[in-house]
Amino acid sequence: MTTTALEKVSEQIAFGGRQIRFKHRSAVLNCDMQFSVYLPPQAEHEAVPAVYWLSGLTCTDENFSSKAGAQRVAAELGLALIIPDTSPRGDDVPDDDEGAYDFGHGAGFYVNATQQPWAKHYQMYDYIAKELPGLVEAELPLTQDRAISGHSMGGHGALVIGLRESLFSSISAFSPICHPTECPWGHKAFGNYLGEDKSTWRAYDASLLLQERDSVPPILVDQGTADNFLAEQLLTPALEKANQLSGGGAQIRYQQGYDHSYYFIASFIEEHLRFHARNLR
Amino acid sequence: MTTTALEKVSEQIAFGGRQIRFKHRSAVLNCDMQFSVYLPPQAEHEAVPAVYWLSGLTCTDENFSSKAGAQRVAAELGLALIIPDTSPRGDDVPDDDEGAYDFGHGAGFYVNATQQPWAKHYQMYDYIAKELPGLVEAELPLTQDRAISGHSMGGHGALVIGLRESLFSSISAFSPICHPTECPWGHKAFGNYLGEDKSTWRAYDASLLLQERDSVPPILVDQGTADNFLAEQLLTPALEKANQLSGGGAQIRYQQGYDHSYYFIASFIEEHLRFHARNLR
Repeated sequence: MTTTALEKVSEQIAFGGRQIRFKHRSAVLNCDMQFSVYLPPQAEHEAVPAVYWLSGLTCTDENFSSKAGAQRVAAELGLALIIPDTSPRGDDVPDDDEGAYDFGHGAGFYVNATQQPWAKHYQMYDYIAKELPGLVEAELPLTQDRAISGHSMGGHGALVIGLRESLFSSISAFSPICHPTECPWGHKAFGNYLGEDKSTWRAYDASLLLQERDSVPPILVDQGTADNFLAEQLLTPALEKANQLSGGGAQIRYQQGYDHSYYFIASFIEEHLRFHARNLR
Repeated sequence: MTTTALEKVSEQIAFGGRQIRFKHRSAVLNCDMQFSVYLPPQAEHEAVPAVYWLSGLTCTDENFSSKAGAQRVAAELGLALIIPDTSPRGDDVPDDDEGAYDFGHGAGFYVNATQQPWAKHYQMYDYIAKELPGLVEAELPLTQDRAISGHSMGGHGALVIGLRESLFSSISAFSPICHPTECPWGHKAFGNYLGEDKSTWRAYDASLLLQERDSVPPILVDQGTADNFLAEQLLTPALEKANQLSGGGAQIRYQQGYDHSYYFIASFIEEHLRFHARNLR
């Protein structure tokens, strides 16, 4: 393939398809970005649907690419995987003063920041919901059939973007931050990126969004019972309550003994990809 | 389980089984070591066979554990995975003067060093072939049924130990260093660990060992055609020639377009584990 907006950084064969890392200039984020794509073997001769994967705190596009084992199932099902980074990057992009793991670089929280100095670059919501789909569908052999998934902060992003946009035919999440307006990670991120007016936070809280919906796309959520972040940060019961209020359309499962790691993701990514494949338009 | 010689560092659930990291004092290596084990769900109620995995240069026990996707298949087949480190470790263990990636820490080459200052700690052959099987079989729910596999330097180790010892019912390798007496990595490692008398190197060269064997256990080797190390370091044609001389019992396959990475391993680990499961006693 030849693309103009995307510079290929690396390409490796995996399960008969292509694992590719791209670099590009993001107009939305005002910086150079990298992301990874897996193109299944089917993409050599036809356009294929895409599952977007949003990663969690501290991750880049490489964690899911190397640890989840998703390419095997994607190759079988003929799904592309679109794996963006978790924040704007680079020396020009302001970071947490103390280099904390839960704010700034690696912690964009999939919001459009309104506060300075963050607003110039931290526009991850629009990057995922607008710029990236337009870019990859213009440049790569993709249909306009899309699903979205993610882990932890990325599970939050997948639920929020999936619920607010009509882009995605199904949504799934592993260990999502379900109710960020009420947890420490969310307070820190939203307080800085969005400011102290908490009414602006509501548009980025999956539980608040879900409870207001009459109908939702198919949703699958998996949560490990041995996850150290469950009680304080993830607040899965809030999502369960919102789901009841909205009619119970989402499937929210607890998986006994699993923690917050990629071993959990790897164990259930096959079910998630098959769920998305069944629900693609 | 309760063990006396093994200290559990961490335990995580994966595919219904247990991914465990242990620490222990190695008498053979004269230092503290860590290794990882995957116990499949079947090990909760019965002893299971084990596949030993030897990793390549720069790796620890974590690379294969997190990137190969092997636990899924091991859980299905009821196989334990025993995943040691690639060298002795610690501040007391001498390292390459310049911190090179291909000698010293992370580069034990699965030999018993005879030269100073290496001989006190660099006894990786005996660690893998003697100490580790005795230790894990005494402490964990394992049968004495074993197979061995590995990647690159670890593929060399798997072939050499598998050919020399009767411990393992089958051998496999990804991108092995096939003829280390004739490649730069081998010259550097063997010259330092074993000394300048090249007759002592022969016991650690898979091609030289294989060509002298009349009968060999089942052997499966996969090599990517886009592997940057193939021509200079891996020398796969030497193993093919040795295989012809010994009767052609080993299956040596070239996989089109694959490189030296874990994407290659992940793509074919299922076939390797099924190969070992078929050949277990």
